[in-house]
Amino acid sequence: MQPTRRVFLRSGLAGASAIGAGAIGAGAIGASALLADPGSAVAAVESGESGPTGIVPFYGAHQAGIATPAPNYLQFGSFNVIGDTIADLRRLLLIWTDAAARMSAGQQIGPVRTGSKPPVDTGEAIGLAPSDLTVTFGFGATLFSDNGVDRFGLAKHKPAPLADLPAFLGDALQPVISGGDLCVQVCANDPQVAFHAMHDLIKQASPLATPKWLLAGFGRTGNTTKEPLPRNLMGFQDGTANIMAQDTGAFKQFVWAGEPASPAWMRGGSYLVARRIQIALELWDATGLDGQQQTIGREKLSGAVLPVVPPTSHLVLSSPSRNNGQRILRRGYSFVDGVDPATGFPAVGVLFLCYQKDPRKQFIPIQRRLAGADALSEYLTHIGSAVFACPPGVTSGQFIGEQLIG
Amino acid sequence: MQPTRRVFLRSGLAGASAIGAGAIGAGAIGASALLADPGSAVAAVESGESGPTGIVPFYGAHQAGIATPAPNYLQFGSFNVIGDTIADLRRLLLIWTDAAARMSAGQQIGPVRTGSKPPVDTGEAIGLAPSDLTVTFGFGATLFSDNGVDRFGLAKHKPAPLADLPAFLGDALQPVISGGDLCVQVCANDPQVAFHAMHDLIKQASPLATPKWLLAGFGRTGNTTKEPLPRNLMGFQDGTANIMAQDTGAFKQFVWAGEPASPAWMRGGSYLVARRIQIALELWDATGLDGQQQTIGREKLSGAVLPVVPPTSHLVLSSPSRNNGQRILRRGYSFVDGVDPATGFPAVGVLFLCYQKDPRKQFIPIQRRLAGADALSEYLTHIGSAVFACPPGVTSGQFIGEQLIG
Repeated sequence: MQPTRRVFLRSGLAGASAIGAGAIGAGAIGASALLADPGSAVAAVESGESGPTGIVPFYGAHQAGIATPAPNYLQFGSFNVIGDTIADLRRLLLIWTDAAARMSAGQQIGPVRTGSKPPVDTGEAIGLAPSDLTVTFGFGATLFSDNGVDRFGLAKHKPAPLADLPAFLGDALQPVISGGDLCVQVCANDPQVAFHAMHDLIKQASPLATPKWLLAGFGRTGNTTKEPLPRNLMGFQDGTANIMAQDTGAFKQFVWAGEPASPAWMRGGSYLVARRIQIALELWDATGLDGQQQTIGREKLSGAVLPVVPPTSHLVLSSPSRNNGQRILRRGYSFVDGVDPATGFPAVGVLFLCYQKDPRKQFIPIQRRLAGADALSEYLTHIGSAVFACPPGVTSGQFIGEQLIG
Repeated sequence: MQPTRRVFLRSGLAGASAIGAGAIGAGAIGASALLADPGSAVAAVESGESGPTGIVPFYGAHQAGIATPAPNYLQFGSFNVIGDTIADLRRLLLIWTDAAARMSAGQQIGPVRTGSKPPVDTGEAIGLAPSDLTVTFGFGATLFSDNGVDRFGLAKHKPAPLADLPAFLGDALQPVISGGDLCVQVCANDPQVAFHAMHDLIKQASPLATPKWLLAGFGRTGNTTKEPLPRNLMGFQDGTANIMAQDTGAFKQFVWAGEPASPAWMRGGSYLVARRIQIALELWDATGLDGQQQTIGREKLSGAVLPVVPPTSHLVLSSPSRNNGQRILRRGYSFVDGVDPATGFPAVGVLFLCYQKDPRKQFIPIQRRLAGADALSEYLTHIGSAVFACPPGVTSGQFIGEQLIG
């Protein structure tokens, strides 16, 4: 509880709403809605489990959606900031924080009964349970410096771990589904609740920010304690040996940002690497079981490690023992995107999301090793890529990113 | 139970599998798998409810997926038939029937432990519940006559109700996501179970048929007895006044095909009209609540009919009383398809699926009336369209479409 911050927040929001629809468009929300306190959602997220009500606390030392269990559905959005002042960026983060806190608590973001004005909350989640909704925000490198332009005066605060990824062998990245100034990761156990959250965050952001790319996913592949482990679209169990929510030591060592590599404002945050990976499903389906198992390093049905594991298997090459003991927190989701005109097969894959303390020591060397030798890479093509610095959590009255631009 | 048919089916399948992988590609399944009897799934589908095990019977007087309750997730596929003989078509329907019956019963379509050969079942649904999976097949007009070519000798059997739709005011149809020789509607309460079914049907079809367009959906908008009714992505409740599964009189009058309009082979089948409708979400979000409610004819929060309902509202114009008493069975699903580059908003909409006795008397006049006057049409664009004759159900030992091409 930081009364000073709260007063600041309220005056900031009142200022934003006073600017009115002309300044922040259809997304404008009235002061009365913003000044209400989500209240009951204030609780530590440390426990890593959602309560019996299906509410994952929005406020806490860390943002929800990283250490908290991964629900079944994802909406991921990357945004470009259109506004060009630090005040615009602050206003956007104030609006987003307020909306995310309300929706995480199962509330509407604002009134629906608005007479001649557009409803503030768009309404499609009315009557649905909170569904373990989490909303996680991140800052892309272009927010700090875009082709050498210090757009918001933030260049001096750019964390060193928020480094551009090198080109990896086999990358076929499409700029239109890569990068972005900001990201929003929405997870929920109901796809309509997840969509509603993304929809209303997009609406509220207009015209300060606009989505660059969006992707819906399902069937989390990792970050779960459920048994049996979920299977990916290649039919193999996924998520083996992931970092588990209760392993606070591993989180401290591998996931949460800290000094000296990260600046103070990132302490308790984490770096998200997002890779959109397409699976050559027609090629995989035509591969013999033996070949599939040798590629992964495990039996398909049982998930057991093979008696003899080929050195080029994904199991071996992705193992921490081959990567200086480094681990990453995986939180991937499968996606299906119509027919691939090149193959006549479904265009499917995984939005591989991983959180870590420093991608320069974790994702980058791991992926460099995999891209060069992993038998699985014959079947996978990385078509989208982005890295975001996800700041730490906040308490009620603060806004996400306040440690950076407060 | 028709022993003769079953013997026929088995010899047909054994013949198909004897042709081997060279003829039906990666989809080839061994005789041993095909000859097993899904058995326990044999039951009438008339009850319209799934059992406690989450199994919706595949066999019955009608195909599952029409009168049965709509689960939460959809995979819809339209296919072009590549094979050019009636024997190819029969083989495809044999393979699909066998696979669909097994998957509906919660079984794998064939072995996974196949040694050096590709697994028959691709495996991603292993360990998941049957999830009320239904698979519904339909025949497009081009299967009977394609630009005047009678490809399979079926032209004389084409049902009159399987008529091409006229152009409606405002249509912006894209050929690449319209039409198709065959359709497969997969519904389930787990998106991974639904995807797996579509995936394996595509794999098994190769190279006899190949998908033309695919679409994933969620959050059924209609055909449910659940209260409160689900909301569509415009935030309004949808499915009001739909035909309910237990209303067998309405099904007989409005849904199930019958003579004299339909040929004998379609008796107990139904005609599916599929329309991919995009929602101008950014325009809708910027519309005042009053305007939204006047457009629909109902209150947004409560779903109650407005005290004064505008004559151009969707409620009035879609009402049976304005359409010669005609009704259709709706089974639509919402879709989300990334960012619409034209608006920067999510490209969302509904795959509107409706079943009926005769589209010439039902969908066509209803849509003609709506396209010309419905206030809602300002926000909707029809971008895909298709019509399919879904044949009646079959009993174990028969294959879907056997009444037509047996």
